[in-house]
Amino acid sequence: MPNTAPSLRFVIVGGVAAGASAAARARRLDERASIAVLERGPDVSFANCGLPYFIGGEIRQRDALSVQTPQTLKALLNLDVRPSTEAVAIDRPNHRVQVRDLAGGTTSWMPYDRLLLAPGAVPVRPSLPGIDDPRILTLRSLGDMDRIKAAATSAAHVTVVGAGFIGLEMAEQLVRLGKNVTLIELADQVLPPLDRPMTQLIADELRRHRIDLRLSDRVVSFAATADTLVCHLASGTTLSTQLVILAIGVRPDTALARAAGLALSERGHLRVNDHLQTNDPHIYAAGDAIETTDLVTGTPSAVALGGPANRQGRHVADRIFRPAHTPPFPGVLGTAIVRVFNVAAGLTGWSEKRLRAAGRPFRTVTVNDNHHAGYFPGAKPLQLKLLWDPADGRVLGAQVSGLAGVDKRLDVLATALTGRLTIDDLAQLELAYAPPFGAAKDIVNLAGFAACNARDGLVTLVDALPADPAVQILDVRPPPLVQSHPLPVPHALNIPLGALRGRLGELDRARPVVTVCALGKSAYFAARILAQNGFQVTALAGGIRAHFDPLSPAKLPVP
Amino acid sequence: MPNTAPSLRFVIVGGVAAGASAAARARRLDERASIAVLERGPDVSFANCGLPYFIGGEIRQRDALSVQTPQTLKALLNLDVRPSTEAVAIDRPNHRVQVRDLAGGTTSWMPYDRLLLAPGAVPVRPSLPGIDDPRILTLRSLGDMDRIKAAATSAAHVTVVGAGFIGLEMAEQLVRLGKNVTLIELADQVLPPLDRPMTQLIADELRRHRIDLRLSDRVVSFAATADTLVCHLASGTTLSTQLVILAIGVRPDTALARAAGLALSERGHLRVNDHLQTNDPHIYAAGDAIETTDLVTGTPSAVALGGPANRQGRHVADRIFRPAHTPPFPGVLGTAIVRVFNVAAGLTGWSEKRLRAAGRPFRTVTVNDNHHAGYFPGAKPLQLKLLWDPADGRVLGAQVSGLAGVDKRLDVLATALTGRLTIDDLAQLELAYAPPFGAAKDIVNLAGFAACNARDGLVTLVDALPADPAVQILDVRPPPLVQSHPLPVPHALNIPLGALRGRLGELDRARPVVTVCALGKSAYFAARILAQNGFQVTALAGGIRAHFDPLSPAKLPVP
Repeated sequence: MPNTAPSLRFVIVGGVAAGASAAARARRLDERASIAVLERGPDVSFANCGLPYFIGGEIRQRDALSVQTPQTLKALLNLDVRPSTEAVAIDRPNHRVQVRDLAGGTTSWMPYDRLLLAPGAVPVRPSLPGIDDPRILTLRSLGDMDRIKAAATSAAHVTVVGAGFIGLEMAEQLVRLGKNVTLIELADQVLPPLDRPMTQLIADELRRHRIDLRLSDRVVSFAATADTLVCHLASGTTLSTQLVILAIGVRPDTALARAAGLALSERGHLRVNDHLQTNDPHIYAAGDAIETTDLVTGTPSAVALGGPANRQGRHVADRIFRPAHTPPFPGVLGTAIVRVFNVAAGLTGWSEKRLRAAGRPFRTVTVNDNHHAGYFPGAKPLQLKLLWDPADGRVLGAQVSGLAGVDKRLDVLATALTGRLTIDDLAQLELAYAPPFGAAKDIVNLAGFAACNARDGLVTLVDALPADPAVQILDVRPPPLVQSHPLPVPHALNIPLGALRGRLGELDRARPVVTVCALGKSAYFAARILAQNGFQVTALAGGIRAHFDPLSPAKLPVP
Repeated sequence: MPNTAPSLRFVIVGGVAAGASAAARARRLDERASIAVLERGPDVSFANCGLPYFIGGEIRQRDALSVQTPQTLKALLNLDVRPSTEAVAIDRPNHRVQVRDLAGGTTSWMPYDRLLLAPGAVPVRPSLPGIDDPRILTLRSLGDMDRIKAAATSAAHVTVVGAGFIGLEMAEQLVRLGKNVTLIELADQVLPPLDRPMTQLIADELRRHRIDLRLSDRVVSFAATADTLVCHLASGTTLSTQLVILAIGVRPDTALARAAGLALSERGHLRVNDHLQTNDPHIYAAGDAIETTDLVTGTPSAVALGGPANRQGRHVADRIFRPAHTPPFPGVLGTAIVRVFNVAAGLTGWSEKRLRAAGRPFRTVTVNDNHHAGYFPGAKPLQLKLLWDPADGRVLGAQVSGLAGVDKRLDVLATALTGRLTIDDLAQLELAYAPPFGAAKDIVNLAGFAACNARDGLVTLVDALPADPAVQILDVRPPPLVQSHPLPVPHALNIPLGALRGRLGELDRARPVVTVCALGKSAYFAARILAQNGFQVTALAGGIRAHFDPLSPAKLPVP
């Protein structure tokens, strides 16, 4: 018989995404390791990205969310999984963790050879007057989910605070349950990680489903009455509701790490090296609680997302049990997506606002197209914003919104970021094309074309119509469209693209021209004609759809 | 007024994908160029990938396929487009093309400064007895489409020869029209560019829709009777049909180039440099008629696909009108996809059969998963085969088949090939994850994991069950599944994965073991347990689904 003494004692604090992945991978790598998973909550390895969908009934089986239980993990992986068990202290010199059984209240010490901290994050709960009302809930665990689902049953009106990914998913699912929903967001847009124009489609979709969207506002206090909860907003508005879901973000759950003297970032994330090791070489960290590096720039970055957490947990097991085979952890992109009713939006890499805040040079284009060949039935519009480094053309980030194919383009662009591709590479990317699936020139190719054109000076793009009346605004859309959906400026001249070469005389060569169309393409074509005929010309980037959506004939149709 | 004399005379032979793209791009770059497009057929710039879908009625408007007409191209782009006009000779020393007006029959000479040959390809029509029967048609142009659509009206039975991309699309659309369809393919599989196991799903879907699929067979002669056409097959079978669609491939239409003494490949493709220039520096070539380089290996490669043709045409215009800004054409991947009823399959880069034929070293894994998180409703199965270079782990190619999300994974893998990513990169790829769109570990990540595990010796995969009865076959599926869908071997032992550690005594340590499960994952887990307990063990790659599909409980469900 082989030796059955433990090869190594691996203790994992946190049993959801990163912790469970680390434990499973560790067991594949070493049958003889002693592997213990300590989870403060009652559940391990559950699908926390699915919680909103069970509340709304789109996922019907609660069991579907419980990926594993301690029993299945024992049977399949011979893991010592301890739910409702809190790690309360780390005795680093003696390589042991103090463990409290939350049911029995007893504490004990558990020795480790290697420790992984995967404590995750906890929802932010601001200290506002009235915040302790039991009708103000957050969503992080299966227990939270059950509480919200139960509370929603009797609530006619629910207020969701925060229009980030979770807030949007909750708002949608609450509408699905027939609730009246108010959604409050501090920023002047939904989905704050994205740039504002790329979130317009989501905002429109929320309003179309009668969600009362309040941007640039926040709750300053809550007041309880017998059967309602009154939210006082910074704008002065008062709002009566029956249930409040707080979804304003999470903070890393690193009190244990801090007490143990492990290095934390300013925002409280565990600092790790590129093998996800903390400043104590016997202690690793993974998941929502850590700060790793940004894959694009190499700068510190903390993202609280399921995908990276799972892979980080796996990486730690690799690093501990087969270090020679384990390349450094590459860092994170922050790729994220959300579906809101019939539309979706997401990003990968850096946004314009983040690049601006960091003072990094960038250029950007926004393009519009269909998700597959326009001649094939069912083509649906989508919009793509691309950001790149003017020094070398390398892609820095991208955002996509639309009715179909958003996830595909984000995945292509995330892969492009991983491969450090340039805008020239995107122009030439050879994606799968058959009419039901794509186009001979996919929107990702178009973004590459547009970016190269901008870089090479074939066109100068502007992001807004000029206020200066000396600038001629040339609308090149077909006249019927211009009449039904005029530009919101009084002095635009309409010459359809096909007639432009013959009607150049109607423009004043001495004054600059801005060309405008529905989606951006014809304006570019017109600008090329004018530039080569000696005009000083710029084109409105992304067309009217990207700037005056409510006015636009190109407004995304809703199926 | 600016100078209006032509800056350069650009003549383009061929006005569909590459030719039309080159003309449009050239005009954006140079208002003053004289740009002429000579097209032998009656139509220019039509969507030839859409032709089968109009025949079947899935695309209803014929106009949708006519992207542009000579009139719109004149108005929008000031192009001199001449349909039904054939370039019959090139006088290279004098930089002129002899042009025949196919309607009037007159010929004339047209001078050029730069010439682009984008003649495309023509369907192969083998010289078989009876091949000239008017009921034997091919599909390449709008006219071909109209002829097939008309002929299909009165045909009860249609025979499609060739189960490549076009043949499959035609077979599907003919079933849509209510026809009885026989599909004959020379190879022992459909979709010959793919490896056989990855085409099983498509073959099953064809049969499920009552298509009479005849693999490993071919027509040797046709015999006409009054109201039927009799196909005699190599197998000895005789088949009565009313209409035959030949879809056995295309050959480059390079007679003009050959007569002009331009360099051709052995298979008759125009040879070009990395700026798509022929051996005459004033003559460029693009589209289905050329041989360019393979993006993965740099070896010569000819692919007849719409995406590359469009981008090659655009590249030629760039190269002529702004050479300083134009990087070399990067080459082609051969990314392709086909939808067949409710399933899809495709590839990018190199297949196993192609790598074998070229004698290139490779390794491969096949993985199975769902197209998004399994806990979210609507998850559909898909299968991914990955090939990589054992020297450095670089991805060489991939194939995907399944019910949803096939195009997305192909596009991610095409981008990975462009970025020269390795299997380690795929394992860490950060793709967009929300339950409706993906999974915390996407199938692309799983393929990366499986490939790294294989490379690092964590598991040794086998592609078939051993015939040697000395090898123990261990089936780790749950017993009910084993009973309802037993392995097609008499001596398999069933120990479900969760019980394996406690039942190792049932296995003979002196004899090798092959582990088997439904999808490949549990067999890998079991192999890890056995290997670490001193067994000599291999695992069946990709599970039963990849090898014994008809027997498998994991057989892809049909919605």
